[in-house]
Amino acid sequence: MAGNEKNKKLVTEITAMDEDFAKWYTDIVKKADLIDYSSVKGCMIIRPYGYAIWENIQKILDAKFKESGVENVYMPMFIPESLLKKEKDHVEGFAPEVAWVTHGGEERLAERLCVRPTSETLFCEHYANIIKSYRDLPKVYNQWCSVVRWEKTTRPFLRSREFLWQEGHTMHRTAEEAEERTVQMLNVYADFFEKDLGIPVIKGQKTDKEKFAGAEATYTVEALMHDGKALQGGTSHNFGNGFAKAFDIQFLDSDNQLKYAYETSWGVSTRIIGGIIMTHGDDSGLVLPPSVAPIQVVVIPVQQHKEGVIDKANEIADILKSAGYRVKVDASEQSPGWKFSEYEMKGVPLRVEIGPRDIAENKCVIVRRDNREKSFVSLDNLSEAVAEGLKNLQQAIYEKALANRENRTFTAETLDELKKIASENNGYIRAMWCGDLECEMKLKEEADVTSRCMPFGMEPIGDKCVCCGRAAKKLVYWGKAY
Amino acid sequence: MAGNEKNKKLVTEITAMDEDFAKWYTDIVKKADLIDYSSVKGCMIIRPYGYAIWENIQKILDAKFKESGVENVYMPMFIPESLLKKEKDHVEGFAPEVAWVTHGGEERLAERLCVRPTSETLFCEHYANIIKSYRDLPKVYNQWCSVVRWEKTTRPFLRSREFLWQEGHTMHRTAEEAEERTVQMLNVYADFFEKDLGIPVIKGQKTDKEKFAGAEATYTVEALMHDGKALQGGTSHNFGNGFAKAFDIQFLDSDNQLKYAYETSWGVSTRIIGGIIMTHGDDSGLVLPPSVAPIQVVVIPVQQHKEGVIDKANEIADILKSAGYRVKVDASEQSPGWKFSEYEMKGVPLRVEIGPRDIAENKCVIVRRDNREKSFVSLDNLSEAVAEGLKNLQQAIYEKALANRENRTFTAETLDELKKIASENNGYIRAMWCGDLECEMKLKEEADVTSRCMPFGMEPIGDKCVCCGRAAKKLVYWGKAY
Repeated sequence: MAGNEKNKKLVTEITAMDEDFAKWYTDIVKKADLIDYSSVKGCMIIRPYGYAIWENIQKILDAKFKESGVENVYMPMFIPESLLKKEKDHVEGFAPEVAWVTHGGEERLAERLCVRPTSETLFCEHYANIIKSYRDLPKVYNQWCSVVRWEKTTRPFLRSREFLWQEGHTMHRTAEEAEERTVQMLNVYADFFEKDLGIPVIKGQKTDKEKFAGAEATYTVEALMHDGKALQGGTSHNFGNGFAKAFDIQFLDSDNQLKYAYETSWGVSTRIIGGIIMTHGDDSGLVLPPSVAPIQVVVIPVQQHKEGVIDKANEIADILKSAGYRVKVDASEQSPGWKFSEYEMKGVPLRVEIGPRDIAENKCVIVRRDNREKSFVSLDNLSEAVAEGLKNLQQAIYEKALANRENRTFTAETLDELKKIASENNGYIRAMWCGDLECEMKLKEEADVTSRCMPFGMEPIGDKCVCCGRAAKKLVYWGKAY
Repeated sequence: MAGNEKNKKLVTEITAMDEDFAKWYTDIVKKADLIDYSSVKGCMIIRPYGYAIWENIQKILDAKFKESGVENVYMPMFIPESLLKKEKDHVEGFAPEVAWVTHGGEERLAERLCVRPTSETLFCEHYANIIKSYRDLPKVYNQWCSVVRWEKTTRPFLRSREFLWQEGHTMHRTAEEAEERTVQMLNVYADFFEKDLGIPVIKGQKTDKEKFAGAEATYTVEALMHDGKALQGGTSHNFGNGFAKAFDIQFLDSDNQLKYAYETSWGVSTRIIGGIIMTHGDDSGLVLPPSVAPIQVVVIPVQQHKEGVIDKANEIADILKSAGYRVKVDASEQSPGWKFSEYEMKGVPLRVEIGPRDIAENKCVIVRRDNREKSFVSLDNLSEAVAEGLKNLQQAIYEKALANRENRTFTAETLDELKKIASENNGYIRAMWCGDLECEMKLKEEADVTSRCMPFGMEPIGDKCVCCGRAAKKLVYWGKAY
């Protein structure tokens, strides 16, 4: 078939995953029109198709946030150097990688401003202004914005000098309430990854070495990519009252005592898009979860020059649009084969093909992006078939990702075992850890793995540290990370 | 009544409009919880209530944009100095007021980057990359982001070193198509101001002196504030192919000729919020158009300690929420009078009061924010009464603003007349102009007015320049502007 010929031709334009996963990734972000480069080194242009994915991510998360009482705000993008320095651990973590504004117009500024790498300091300054009484608590604010971190090596979505994200910053009356919010938001993220994006995650706590600069505890959702490397999907931090003390955020409690407030922050970024690509994509391109796919169903007329074919394609699209789906008809001059490849590259979950013979038989063909399964569907049941197809795809991509993770999850009891596994495989290595930084560093040095998280609610798999052999209570997921 | 006492007390906290309009304005932005200041000089924190207004503005405009074929993207926030300099007029207009990043982390950058004051240059660089054929046109992109202009004197929403906006940038095959898009987007803005925000506008063209740096023509919607000063609400620019030439954006047309593309750009910003405040606000605070009000109806229980009152208030809110309204019940410990003042300050369009006697009679009281008109409404007709109330308020605030503009629109035929009017009034002065920069400068110098726009579709009011007396074809609206 001519269609398949063209299909093959286009597909060869991207590197195969197994040949060079990194190259496959960069091929996809370009060929699927997600990003473009510019003369601004280390930053990316997010193109309409990529940005539409981000808009869908925002829409879903923002609704979940607001349901849980979050209010959106906007803070300045600049932070005066003195403000950034107010919390010691925080500035040490971020100062080496910020961009500095030194001039406004023709004038040198009296004080340098950094472009926000994160906004704890600004939120804290504001909270110190507006929190006076226990009646002012909790404050549950969030902002959607871009942040800048001056990275040396960059990759689209995964590590970029500027990226888009949301950062929630909350203040609470008690330590317990702050802890509750920290966990609550982690669960919002976990739910979003698993149910909306079809990406299974491990929830857990970061070790002290890996936690956020200035936080008491950092919780994380960790996802495993197709190549077995881990990706930190989202983090939620409990700051205790450390920042409140540094910024003097005190409130008069109902017992008439002045007390410091307790703080959390939590965020996810455009990195999620990298995670979607590397979890679900294949050698034909992207595979998008329906929830965030800019186009959920593409309708492709076959033999479109014949009378009534394009009309029927539009009719089908209208029916599906009224049923609430995001639909596109491609009646351009390109061949059906070219279109098949194009929308496979773009990861559109379902393709509807409609030609003269289908019309005569009052049916169409529906093809699933993930497994290319074809169904012949009566036009009378179109919406139901699409609903079913999207649901099945969503389930299938989740299960495929879960199977990949299970196949790539190993257990090690000794250092030699761990080193052997790490040298032969990418994936998670479950192993006990004594809690000492020294052992964590040694695993990095000798096996090139870092601690991804100490998972919640899992049984220990022994009682000795995989590294030093001393008593260990903590199960850690180790791995190589993006 | 106790309620009215408290009401008065709170109201005295803001300056009266007629006493000091500028002070009244800054009082409102603070007291209505729209913004806060921070240690970042000249920038503002947009607080939840202010940001919710912006979110509503975004939602409405973004839907209108997308209906007209706009696709959203995201460009880097930095512009290398050499890129900014590519179009001569453009860099001259913006370079004096940009913020410069000179260091990334510890290192000095090889080339300075400015924080975008606007993104024509980035869009053009990208368009040069992706536009090859007439089939790639038109490109109709937009981005929602923040931009930075290093202003010396700042005022919240009106003039801030950083502000939020949208900037549309489009490329077209022909000059005619670009002109059409320029006008189309101006009309989107005009519609939004008049129908959604209840702000009457004059549509017209900017003089060369007032047009955008690098544009061939700038169209504008101009609104008149309560104090008679003009506010530029939104602008739409036709660039011709000047930028396309500077950035080498050429496409192969169907006649096999390489041609330069034609460009437009258009934007509105958080300045709109300043316009809403200064058009509709009064001595009790904000008055918000229902379309963008974060809370459209506030329900206030009276004698809320009595059994069933708070329940009934919640029931009313639920009914209105299901009818699609944004509703809040305030059952806090504050007195009804305090609450009345608070939500008047915040400009909530309708207030529903419900107390034990109302409940017994199956009715409630609805009070309109703009004129404080009270209606007694049967609970059986609640949604209809609210719909009616919001519609009437919307109509009334538009008409009030229109009457203010009409009262403040003057006509001058001689320079002396114009100077006299300008010295005695704030408002628009309609006068003919020969088209010479010299006369425009002279009016600025002698009467302290600038040209707001050359309105579309209005009859000339004479044939002599108000300034020099020579032949004049152009009617100009002159005024003092924010």
